[in-house]
Amino acid sequence: MTENQVRQVLSKLEGKTFTQVYFVACGGSSALMYPGKYLMDCYSSKINSDYYNSNEFIYLSPAALGPSSLVILCSQEGKTPETVEAAKFAKAHGATVIALAMREGTPLQEASDLFVQYGHYNTSPMIETSYGVVFMLTAGIIEQQDGVNLFDGMVKSLTAATPIVKQAIEHFRPMANEFANACKDTKVLYSLAAGPDYSQSYVFCNCYMMEMQWINAIPIHAGEFFHGPFEIIEENSPVVLLMGQSRSRFLEERALTFCKRYTKKLFTIDTKEVEFTDIEEEFKGVVALLVLNNVCRLFSQTIAIVRDHSLDIRRYMHLVEY
Amino acid sequence: MTENQVRQVLSKLEGKTFTQVYFVACGGSSALMYPGKYLMDCYSSKINSDYYNSNEFIYLSPAALGPSSLVILCSQEGKTPETVEAAKFAKAHGATVIALAMREGTPLQEASDLFVQYGHYNTSPMIETSYGVVFMLTAGIIEQQDGVNLFDGMVKSLTAATPIVKQAIEHFRPMANEFANACKDTKVLYSLAAGPDYSQSYVFCNCYMMEMQWINAIPIHAGEFFHGPFEIIEENSPVVLLMGQSRSRFLEERALTFCKRYTKKLFTIDTKEVEFTDIEEEFKGVVALLVLNNVCRLFSQTIAIVRDHSLDIRRYMHLVEY
Repeated sequence: MTENQVRQVLSKLEGKTFTQVYFVACGGSSALMYPGKYLMDCYSSKINSDYYNSNEFIYLSPAALGPSSLVILCSQEGKTPETVEAAKFAKAHGATVIALAMREGTPLQEASDLFVQYGHYNTSPMIETSYGVVFMLTAGIIEQQDGVNLFDGMVKSLTAATPIVKQAIEHFRPMANEFANACKDTKVLYSLAAGPDYSQSYVFCNCYMMEMQWINAIPIHAGEFFHGPFEIIEENSPVVLLMGQSRSRFLEERALTFCKRYTKKLFTIDTKEVEFTDIEEEFKGVVALLVLNNVCRLFSQTIAIVRDHSLDIRRYMHLVEY
Repeated sequence: MTENQVRQVLSKLEGKTFTQVYFVACGGSSALMYPGKYLMDCYSSKINSDYYNSNEFIYLSPAALGPSSLVILCSQEGKTPETVEAAKFAKAHGATVIALAMREGTPLQEASDLFVQYGHYNTSPMIETSYGVVFMLTAGIIEQQDGVNLFDGMVKSLTAATPIVKQAIEHFRPMANEFANACKDTKVLYSLAAGPDYSQSYVFCNCYMMEMQWINAIPIHAGEFFHGPFEIIEENSPVVLLMGQSRSRFLEERALTFCKRYTKKLFTIDTKEVEFTDIEEEFKGVVALLVLNNVCRLFSQTIAIVRDHSLDIRRYMHLVEY
């Protein structure tokens, strides 16, 4: 069981002092690390956390990487070449290396010290998905290093999240249909978010829209929006605005006020429309992120059907050399 | 003189120990901080450096922010409201606050402990521009905190950079014309880069294209490109590929190989085409970044003329409430 694997990994880290935590991955796996870094920034005053694309991590070669570093890597199938290399690179520098993957016995696991196997988002409760694992691990590490009580509350919230996410999917289904019909022929769309939620604008645009639908999609940080990109917005500009419940929600609210005024094609996924039963205030941002992740996926599944363009079609990935 | 102001600021920091350096700004001013963070990552094993949009910095409220933090902020006119607030916020937490601006006597300077006035890119030698200041300051801080000799080499390289940048502008002028004519009616374009150069894809897309030309433009990290976004590329996709000389150049070379094969509208700004006279190996990445910054600006100035759309036209910024 995933939760027990996380507890075992944390017990192996007990008593060690880490001064850096590096979150390292590519694409969708990279996006899921971003909320981990946000959580560290919010709670840890002792750990320097950073967030890198796997090849960037290797080539940049951070000066601080060494025996007091913890490196967390993720690759769904456990064989993304750059991420496997990054694990080897980190180990060669004396770091403690934790791998996350959906499969066991992969090159990534082999290159790492510790391993957690996570479940597929379609069939697993939230706590057992990749996001659940990153949240549990991060909370546990912060608790060990900074003495902030986070782990039990995190487990409780992740456990309570599964029915909330299901309810959210039903709640936003009509909006997903509306989005799919309004945007099926669109040439370009935008997604805005701030704080940890930005990771979901990133996945939505880079993976769901550009990779899987060949629709141009621009992820824009809701705080940066007002310092350039907002000039592109016209009354027919399709905007998918994500509103979570992190500390940075105000930035998303500010974007909402602007977008409401200047575009008629605004799709606001506001997680406050869903009832968060049994979730303490402190963990609402975490559960909101899981909601956004799943509702964005629903949006992509719905538009894929309307456009008759399967999410699985590729023209380059794993098909040509690159 | 800017260099002397930087030296004075550094002399005020002498003897203090900082465990965090936060680079905080918005939009174009934020982009210029990114290479500062990259430099810190490459050379400093003692400082945790981070990079935030001003409002994100305030609302996230990093747990580590305190008396051992150094916060560097930038705003060209010195009055970006979020950045002024971020300076006050940092000071209230006991941090040492350094402001950079092109104007003296602004609210940002007033809210800060230390100040450097930089010159306009059109009229100042490279060392006196905002980028020059960030590079000098960062090198000086690393030298003080980590004992790595960087400052004198940085000053020497920035001083030697001005004629190189001028030469680069002439070298890439024909390509800028080609780009402007090929893309004047384009609905969407892409810019790829890795390492510190990614900041220039960011400025090029978010500021020059989206804000100032109302052309959709997607900045894509060259390492992340292969994990999603590359699926959007077709033979008529306009790509502006930036090739600097940082440690991360390999990621840009990999993107080049792919783009050469799959699009006919590739504009590669390869800084290796320009002779880097009197630049030591270690500082080539810094000078390359200045080249990319100025050549990207040339691209935008050229397309603005061809499209007869002034870079100064706005429909929202400073015109409506937001």
